[in-house]
Amino acid sequence: MPTEPTVSPGVRSVPVRRRGERLERDLVVVEEPLEIRVDGKPLVVTMRTPGHDAELAAGFLFGEGVLSDADDVASVRAEGGFRQRDTQIRVANFSGDAVNVALREGAAKPNVTHAERNFRATAACGVCGKTEIADLDSDLPPIVPIEIDPRLLETLPETLRLSQELFEATGGIHAAGLFDRHGSLLCTREDIGRHNAVDKVIGHFVLKKAVPLSDHILVVSGRAGFELVQKALKASIPAMVSVGAASSLAVQMATDAGMALYSFARPGHGNLHVKE
Amino acid sequence: MPTEPTVSPGVRSVPVRRRGERLERDLVVVEEPLEIRVDGKPLVVTMRTPGHDAELAAGFLFGEGVLSDADDVASVRAEGGFRQRDTQIRVANFSGDAVNVALREGAAKPNVTHAERNFRATAACGVCGKTEIADLDSDLPPIVPIEIDPRLLETLPETLRLSQELFEATGGIHAAGLFDRHGSLLCTREDIGRHNAVDKVIGHFVLKKAVPLSDHILVVSGRAGFELVQKALKASIPAMVSVGAASSLAVQMATDAGMALYSFARPGHGNLHVKE
Repeated sequence: MPTEPTVSPGVRSVPVRRRGERLERDLVVVEEPLEIRVDGKPLVVTMRTPGHDAELAAGFLFGEGVLSDADDVASVRAEGGFRQRDTQIRVANFSGDAVNVALREGAAKPNVTHAERNFRATAACGVCGKTEIADLDSDLPPIVPIEIDPRLLETLPETLRLSQELFEATGGIHAAGLFDRHGSLLCTREDIGRHNAVDKVIGHFVLKKAVPLSDHILVVSGRAGFELVQKALKASIPAMVSVGAASSLAVQMATDAGMALYSFARPGHGNLHVKE
Repeated sequence: MPTEPTVSPGVRSVPVRRRGERLERDLVVVEEPLEIRVDGKPLVVTMRTPGHDAELAAGFLFGEGVLSDADDVASVRAEGGFRQRDTQIRVANFSGDAVNVALREGAAKPNVTHAERNFRATAACGVCGKTEIADLDSDLPPIVPIEIDPRLLETLPETLRLSQELFEATGGIHAAGLFDRHGSLLCTREDIGRHNAVDKVIGHFVLKKAVPLSDHILVVSGRAGFELVQKALKASIPAMVSVGAASSLAVQMATDAGMALYSFARPGHGNLHVKE
């Protein structure tokens, strides 16, 4: 356990030697497993930064298609029960967190068996657990393209950055933010996993029954990989901005779908990807 | 297909509008699926940057414990057969690459069925596919701690950086490098996934039958998450250097195992993590 107070469950104080000299303490981002359950049944384990676990679970299930309608969520509740048990986990302070997503009676039954078999996944990767390349299809809703002034898009990463609390403390955590089309920041979430940050943001709106997000912009602190584009498209988000580079597959998926993907965004700079 | 020559199968030229103005072309990192097979049987699909696929497959299987002895590999060969088939994949230029790892006769049979069931995984995450937190044990060999002058460790990320070919072209790709204890760089690999870059480096030495790497240093271009520490420990690597932050779980796992984990490394700076 931390021997100093920390600012959030997402950070922890650890001893370090700076250049092998003095012993000091530094804050690091917490990375711990979370088990996501649907109606009490374990579905997946993801490594994540604690905080907003209910949003993470809802966003993950929505992004993976287990949950297709936000109205189907009856409750999302933290549960325990996995504290070290008979496992050989070598790490101390293992929290064994779990979140259960209960569906409302009459909800379209999610194909959890299929899900278990076909994407025993982690939020770290959108293709996780697919056993054959042929499984890699993406059942995505169409989006309605929007046009936004690149000079506005360029400013959004800095706004996101200023809203990050844990980055200031640790120097090492990803963020995702949802903006409206006028550039107002509606929700920022941080996580050691880029994908989790996106799941938390989208999950925030799933729990508010505010999906699809057809008139919004998703901004991510790192690179734009295809799985982040996929998660955004699942929520019908028509524009995405990344601080870092976009991958070839992200570019293809975004431009095929009509999404505005803007990479390497910073004041005075940015690449709007267009269809080949 | 690219309409301009590219410097490597790992990069591709795409059209972009800079700040929404002129249409230009830019190079992006290629991100494509690779199916990894063991003795002809599909095990997992991972998204990766093409190049050094055999090493990626070998390193992944070694890191996941499917392959416990480098001598058990008879051959590693590229295969096709998944070119779009009957899938609904929305992306064009989908290569459908596969690599088959054939084991030598008499090799300890890897528990592929168990593997399929328990970590239908991606190289993007070391816990991928585990369905319960209790699955998260890590069957790691002991390591022999080594002491290396932090002033040497600080210089390694820059050496790694200068050896990166695709980063220069794209501005957005991760790297991992293996150094000997005197700071000589033995192998650099790049990939859009940090975990793949590490798998490729370790796989390089698996294929050379040169594991365990008991007297070496692994350097990674980004953050040190626990799964990278886990991969390094599987190969008995006693020291790891990251350019970015280390996570709480990476710190715990490394310091518990006696590994020297040095984060935020750059000339004149670095944090050596020590046991709480």
